[in-house]
Formats: sequence, C-alpha cells, structure tokens
Amino acid sequence: MCRWLAYSGSPIKLEELLVKRAHSLIDQSLHARQGATTTNGDGFGVGWYDDAETPSVYRSTHPAWNDRNLRELAAAVSSPLFFAHIRASTGTAIQETNTHPFRYGRWLWMHNGLIREFPRVKRDLVLAVDESLFPSIEGTTDSETMFYLALTMGLEDDPVAAVERMVGFVEQTGHEHGVDLPIQMTIATTDGQKVWAFRYSSEGKSRSLFFSTRMDTLKALYPDIEELEGLSDETRVIVSEPLGDLPSAWNEVPEAHVGIVEPGADELLPFVPRA
Amino acid sequence: MCRWLAYSGSPIKLEELLVKRAHSLIDQSLHARQGATTTNGDGFGVGWYDDAETPSVYRSTHPAWNDRNLRELAAAVSSPLFFAHIRASTGTAIQETNTHPFRYGRWLWMHNGLIREFPRVKRDLVLAVDESLFPSIEGTTDSETMFYLALTMGLEDDPVAAVERMVGFVEQTGHEHGVDLPIQMTIATTDGQKVWAFRYSSEGKSRSLFFSTRMDTLKALYPDIEELEGLSDETRVIVSEPLGDLPSAWNEVPEAHVGIVEPGADELLPFVPRA
Amino acid sequence: MCRWLAYSGSPIKLEELLVKRAHSLIDQSLHARQGATTTNGDGFGVGWYDDAETPSVYRSTHPAWNDRNLRELAAAVSSPLFFAHIRASTGTAIQETNTHPFRYGRWLWMHNGLIREFPRVKRDLVLAVDESLFPSIEGTTDSETMFYLALTMGLEDDPVAAVERMVGFVEQTGHEHGVDLPIQMTIATTDGQKVWAFRYSSEGKSRSLFFSTRMDTLKALYPDIEELEGLSDETRVIVSEPLGDLPSAWNEVPEAHVGIVEPGADELLPFVPRA
Amino acid sequence: MCRWLAYSGSPIKLEELLVKRAHSLIDQSLHARQGATTTNGDGFGVGWYDDAETPSVYRSTHPAWNDRNLRELAAAVSSPLFFAHIRASTGTAIQETNTHPFRYGRWLWMHNGLIREFPRVKRDLVLAVDESLFPSIEGTTDSETMFYLALTMGLEDDPVAAVERMVGFVEQTGHEHGVDLPIQMTIATTDGQKVWAFRYSSEGKSRSLFFSTRMDTLKALYPDIEELEGLSDETRVIVSEPLGDLPSAWNEVPEAHVGIVEPGADELLPFVPRA
Repeated sequence: MCRWLAYSGSPIKLEELLVKRAHSLIDQSLHARQGATTTNGDGFGVGWYDDAETPSVYRSTHPAWNDRNLRELAAAVSSPLFFAHIRASTGTAIQETNTHPFRYGRWLWMHNGLIREFPRVKRDLVLAVDESLFPSIEGTTDSETMFYLALTMGLEDDPVAAVERMVGFVEQTGHEHGVDLPIQMTIATTDGQKVWAFRYSSEGKSRSLFFSTRMDTLKALYPDIEELEGLSDETRVIVSEPLGDLPSAWNEVPEAHVGIVEPGADELLPFVPRA
Repeated sequence: MCRWLAYSGSPIKLEELLVKRAHSLIDQSLHARQGATTTNGDGFGVGWYDDAETPSVYRSTHPAWNDRNLRELAAAVSSPLFFAHIRASTGTAIQETNTHPFRYGRWLWMHNGLIREFPRVKRDLVLAVDESLFPSIEGTTDSETMFYLALTMGLEDDPVAAVERMVGFVEQTGHEHGVDLPIQMTIATTDGQKVWAFRYSSEGKSRSLFFSTRMDTLKALYPDIEELEGLSDETRVIVSEPLGDLPSAWNEVPEAHVGIVEPGADELLPFVPRA
Repeated sequence: MCRWLAYSGSPIKLEELLVKRAHSLIDQSLHARQGATTTNGDGFGVGWYDDAETPSVYRSTHPAWNDRNLRELAAAVSSPLFFAHIRASTGTAIQETNTHPFRYGRWLWMHNGLIREFPRVKRDLVLAVDESLFPSIEGTTDSETMFYLALTMGLEDDPVAAVERMVGFVEQTGHEHGVDLPIQMTIATTDGQKVWAFRYSSEGKSRSLFFSTRMDTLKALYPDIEELEGLSDETRVIVSEPLGDLPSAWNEVPEAHVGIVEPGADELLPFVPRA
Repeated sequence: MCRWLAYSGSPIKLEELLVKRAHSLIDQSLHARQGATTTNGDGFGVGWYDDAETPSVYRSTHPAWNDRNLRELAAAVSSPLFFAHIRASTGTAIQETNTHPFRYGRWLWMHNGLIREFPRVKRDLVLAVDESLFPSIEGTTDSETMFYLALTMGLEDDPVAAVERMVGFVEQTGHEHGVDLPIQMTIATTDGQKVWAFRYSSEGKSRSLFFSTRMDTLKALYPDIEELEGLSDETRVIVSEPLGDLPSAWNEVPEAHVGIVEPGADELLPFVPRA
C-alpha cells in the first residue's frame, strides 16, 4: 500500500507538507498511522511545477525517511502544484523508473492500489497502449501501465472519461483472465492547472482519499492558526491519509467518485467505468 | 533499535535464518514483532567465515527486505559461522561504512543500542583509540568506535576483559560530560572460532538477547522436526529477538552477562565494566 | 559499449578474472584499453553456477570499480562457470533489472552491442515474445528483449538455431521500420553446461570477441606460469577484450560465427540469421 | 583527480554549466579532456544559494553522467552562486558524506587534490580540529578534514589567513611523519557572498585552475554571442578545467595564488602557507 499527497494553491516550500508536520508524508513513510499497515520504504518521488513547460521530478529508491537529498530539495523548492508519493511495492522491482509520480509531457500521475494478477493480464494491457506512446514506458508497474492506457484513451482531452475508459478496460481484461476484482485504486493526475483525484475499486471498498476543507472555511473556524493566513482560499491538499489532527480539516471522497480541483468551485462527480 | 543474529555450528545456507523462517531477520526488518518499535530499513550487513583467512562482508544501505542481491547471496553462501545485522539509525548517516558487522582482521563486531549523547563524547572516545588502529576506522558510528576501543583495550587477547574495559571507559567518559546513563548495548563479536555475546546497559534494563537451546535438548524435545536433524549438537543461534515460535527453543541472556559459544560447554559469565 | 567475460572450466574464485589481473574486467571498466572508447560505469553484474538448480546473480548500478561488495563476493565465491558484464548504457535506464547477465531458469544471457532504433521497433519485438514468457521480462533493454525472443524461438532446445531466428526476426523488423543495419552484437549464453558465444552484426563489422587458447597448448608454451597448472585442459575464457598481454593466449572469433564451449572438442560454426 | 566549478554572478539555471555546454562538468565526468586522466565516476555534489540562510546541497554516489535526478535538479534550480564537484576517489569510501561540497553554516568548501599519506597523518590532523566543530565532521576524507581545520583556524573571519594556516599545519604534520610533499590542492570556498579559490601544492606544480575573463571584456570581444548578454559584468566562473573552446575566455590562476571573487574589483594574491 502506497501513500500520496497532491497540493494545489499558494506556492509553498515542499517541506511544509513532506517534512515538517506531525504525520507529514515522510513521517507516514516510517510509521503507518492507523493499525497494521506496511512500511512505505520502497522508494519515493516528488513532481512539481514552476515556470518551466514540463514538471520536474525527483525519484529515489531509498526510503523517504533517510534520504538527505529529499530534505534538501524539499527545503529549497517552492511550488504552487506538486505531487509526492511513497511506495510499498506490491511485487515489481525497486527502481527509479517504477516510482511515482510518472510524467508524460505536462502530465503527472500517481497511484495507490494495484491491478490484481498483473503478471497475468499485463501483456494484453500493454498491447492496448498506443504505438506512439509505447516507447515512453520506462518501468514495469501496473501503475505506469494504467497511465499510458489513460493517455491512449484521451487523458489529455477528457481526463474523467479517459480514466473511466481505462478502468473499464482493465476490468474487462481482468474478467477475461478470470480475475474477479481486477482493480483497486486511488489516483491523482494533473496537467499543471487542474488536479483530478479518483477513488474506485472493483469491490467497492476503495482505499481512503481525503480533500482538505476550503481554506476560507478553515480560516473562519480557526482564526488563530497563523500558517493558514498566507494560503489562498482555493488552496487544496488531497491525501491518501490525513496529515494532522485538526478537526474538520479533512473530507473523505466518497466511494467511486472523482474530485476536481480547479479555479473557481471544485467538483465532485460519480465515477463509472466505461466498457 | 537494530536487530542482529549470530550463528555458529553446522554449515548452513545463510538464507535458512535470514530469509526462510517465519520471523526471519528479513521479515523482522519490515515488521517489528512485539509492539511499537521502529522499522529496520536503514541498511543491513552480513559477515561470514569460510576457508579464507578473513571473513567476508556484504553491506548495503537499502532495506534488507527489498535487496535482491542479499537474497541471491543468502541462497548461494553456506557458512559455519556468520553474523547478520539490520539497522535503524540513531542519527548517523546511512552509508555502507556505518553498517554492521564491522571487520578488523579476523574479527567481526555488531551492536544493538547506542552511546548516549555520542556527538558530545565522540572526540574523547576516538582519541583513546590506538594510533595504529585509528586509520582503519571507516565510518562515523558509536558502534564502530566501541569496536576500536575494545581492540585498543585487548579484544584480540582477552575479549571479555577488553569489552569490560571499553564499557568502563565509555561510562567514565560519559559521566565526565554529564551523561547519566552512557551506554545501552547488546554486542556480538567473534574471531571465527568462538562467539562472545554481551548484554549490558548503564540503566540495568538492556535490550533483549537470546541463545538457542542446546541442539541435543531440542532434538530430544522435538524428534519430529526434520530440520534439526542435520545440525550438530553444538550449533547455536544468538539473536536480539527470537526467530520463531518453538516453545523452549530460546533462553534469555540475563542482564549484565556475557555468553561464550565455543567448542565444548558454552559459558555464561557476569559482565562488570572496569574502570 | 559494454564488456563481458565468460568462464568455463576448473572452479576458480571469481576475483581471479574480475579483480586481480592486469586488464581484469574491473580494470577495464575504468580504463578502456584500446583508444577512445567509453567508460563502463553504468553498472555491472555477475552470474555463477554452483550446486544449486539455478545460477546465482549479483547485479548493481554502481560502477564495478568502486563496489566493495563485488570485491567481497568475488573473493568468496568459486565457480566452474560464470558470466560477468560491465555496462555502458546506450540509453535505457540505469537499474538492476537492466544489467546483465539476465537469467531465466537455468539460463544466463549477456550482450554487448545494440538493436538500432530500439524505441521504434521495441513494440513489435516485445509482442513476439511468447505469452507465457512475457511476465518474466523485468527490464527495458534491447538485450533482455533479445533473450526473451530467443527463448520464444527455442533457445532451450537448439540455441544456435534460436539465436539465428531471433537475429533474423530483429533484422526483418528493423527493415520494416526503415532501419538499415538493425543489429550489432556479441552474445554469450549458457545452460550451466555449455557456453555459446555469438559474434554478428548487420554491417559485418562486429565488436570484438576472443577465446582463450586451449590450456594444454598454453601450458606447453608457458611451462613456467604457475597459475596455469591447476586449470584443466578444457578450461576456457571468452571475452570481449583480451585480459592480459600473454602472446598467443587469445584467438579472435571470426565475423558471423558462433563458438561452443563444451566437454570434448569445442566447436566454431558459421552464424547465419534465419528469416 | 576530481573536477570542480564555482559560479558567481547573474542567477542562471545550474544546467547551463553542468549539463548543456560542450565540455560541461557532466561531460567532463565521463571523458577526461586532456589525455589519460581518470574518469570522475565516484559521485558528485552541487551546493547552491538562494534566499535561505544556509546553502542547499545535493550529493550522490552515482556517476554524474547517469544521475537523472541531477539533470532534473539542474533544470529546475536557478542560483546566483553555486558550487559543483565530481569525484574520483583517492581511496576513501564512496559515500554521500565524502562527496563535495562540504557545508558548515553558510559556508561551502570543495577540493581537488589530496593530502599525501593521509591515513598516516589523519589522527594528528583530526585532533587539531576544535572540540566544538568535531561533532560536525560526517565523512572520512582528507578534503573535509582540511575544511574543519580551516574553520578551526579562522575561516569565517579571515579566509586567506585561515587556509594559509591550515596548509602550513598540514605540511608541518606531514613532515613530522616523513612525508616529503604533504599537500596538493585547488580549493574553493564561499560564505555566499565572496568566493575564494586557492591553488597550491608542496611541490609547486599544482593542478590547474582557471577564472573566466571579465564579462565586459568578453562581451566587447564577442558581441555576437547572445548568451553572454544577460550576464552581469561581474559574473565569474572558476573551474579546474575550461568548459569550452572560446579563445581568451579563461585565465589561469598562477601557482601558489588565491583569487577572490567579490563585488567590485576581484583580487589575486600570493598564497603562502603559515607555520
């Protein structure tokens, strides 16, 4: 089980969310918070946007908690939009090309969950990736395969429809190979402007996914918390597990939904795989 | 908190104890067994003897649980005497030269615990290392410093006395710097023939240390366990935490004692730091 | 340009050929011997046979010349048959799953050279890998793809024919994509009993490949060299570049040939790609 | 033999000097430019200043040429003052704590060269480091020892005098141990405002060191080179080896001199070790 975090809003240093907080992502990498889950020590990655055309990505196979370069980077880099991911491998090799977030052009993608019986269905899935995209696949994970399938199915034009088609295809392929519950996922993807966060699983019991409450609400509730002051009203954090203990700071995304963080009102839509 | 294992007896593949068992050392590296202890993901090392004059050492900064080379090595190498150690850093850098076991000539050394306030006392400790030994120090840990102090104080001639002197010196130095409880340790060291295992702490509440029961006793108790058959009566395993659930297989070393595994009867002696 | 070495004969410590000699493989990794070739610092691997059913493999992304574990391993392990490879990447990622030798069951495979325009032809090549073999592909290199194509085409039954078919297929696929000279290779493969070494390139100017002279001949020529005495008459070394300066010790494999090291007389056969 | 680069002037992306140019530092890491020197594949580091109180440092044990994170970082980070260093170990371990630049407070330090017979003199040198600084030493190199000796001897107050005292002490200590020519060095150090670059060796034949010509001169000479336009007249690059082939762009620092890059006119002073 992996963990991830997506941030969109007023530019902040990455370390604010990755390092400093109680229950920061790095802290979570070492100690699972709720119960007997695994340690996330199989590498990590961060991807961030600045003024360049494509996002930057830093990925390592070391545990996040003991990587000094990650701390240096997180203290040096500010960004209005970044992804971070800590990995617990479900079987594929521990190597940088298998760590999230994955990047294609302006897009980033990260995933918590798995395609069940991936070795059995991998070939059929990979064959469905568009020929022009195929050479860009660098790793061997189910997560990256899902990214390239979504790109094949129109991610850059209509992200929600593309991910619905991707999931529909993964479920269909799994069923053809006798896999009952082919997919379990929370996914975040972005083009550097909007962030889409998906929660879905074949069994209808998906891994957790939380949005931070609107900043204006939070500021009204907690006028004494200084660190909220500098953040714009539209600032949002999406996480696999809550980062702190502030009551009412987090809202769970419902089962089989997609949340969209964008300028103006955010959206929350039902998610339905397409055949 | 680190974990370690020392094996002496009939030659076996390293994987028998490092990989295969429930609660093998690698399994322990990922999941602490009893309660809320830390994950041991800050590197590992194995040292083993064969027919060469000096022991071989393999050390890595990756978590033991995801290092493929360790599994290959553990499946390929057999040895009658080997040490294995998984690290949870207490602050010093994650690098191969800081992973156990440490080697000097025919000797290996590994440690679980710490010298408290090490940065404050390090200079005084390091200055006490013999000039001829000083250049062989490769890392920056308290554990390696203890090894070189013990070598300075006669480890190769009288291991028990040397470690008692080393601990006495560390306690004295700590007290001079205002450290109340200067040392916490379980230590294993060997010259390739005997194994010495020490349990001591300034506060009299040392970390756990267990010896396996005599093989002839175990065989009599469990005549149906095939894997015990091939092992000589003198085979012993010393561990920071028991490796399995076999009742009566493990004996705890008492507080402030040293156990010596050697041909003929093993010994268990009180351990008293020397001024 | 990579470099490799295959050894078959009397059991010796790996370090004899990897570390100790002038122009040992590790020495070659740092300093190319003849002219302006690249440094081989993009990882290395060794694979060796002992009494186990499958060979052991140790692979690392560090330069061979500064990897301490490789030196430890090479000093500890003896084997009658081993492969070693040092990598200079032609573009694919530096990760353990991309380092040679590759292993499948009892087979090892390593390669120096490249499939030209690999990103353009990769999809068609990968699709031709048998469905049952597909999930075993772990990396992203042209070299591993060649291995799985050869396995698909019968490597385990008739290695020479399978590699001829594989090369024929790679050339045909390249031509279909407008690649003039699709392949450049020296390859070694083994089942733990025999070693097959191939030299071929579409342009007819393949990278170098040398066999050591028969040991009985060498012993007669150099009666004073002690280190030859212990080696059986059938001992052979196959290398991409000669390891030392002993005159008449090395014979170049001719262009478009395959050499087979086996009990009894070795063989040297023409190599002809099959459509 | 290591290589290094120091930049001071108009803020630029690190990649401009580390990646993009012909004979960039990364290019140099793979191919030595002039003759038969060693490959610099034993790790690298960059240190840079932005608006934070202390500089950031990114260090890795992988070869600079195949480290993807370095390329990402160099494309993302702009700085008006940065150091970069590629390492060829002279014997000490390949680990992050042994890679340059070293950092203490606001200071960075990097070195090309060596203290001869370092294992023999190390203890005496380390003992001379101030007690308050001693715990900050993290690695085991001669280069870091020189840094902490210079800090002990007043680097933060009078850098030139401190380095002259440090070199005098290293030479005296070497002579006491029978070392004829104790030190060989080019060194760069900075407090984030000025840069000091030293060239000295006991034998009077120091490794090369070059300053870029004043930008106003260069602009007058080469009015057509667009990339010079954006750079302030005070921008300077100091390098162990020239980065390109522009005639008259580089001035060699004379033997036994120190150059100081600072606001206003730079300085070039004789360097004389102090007893």
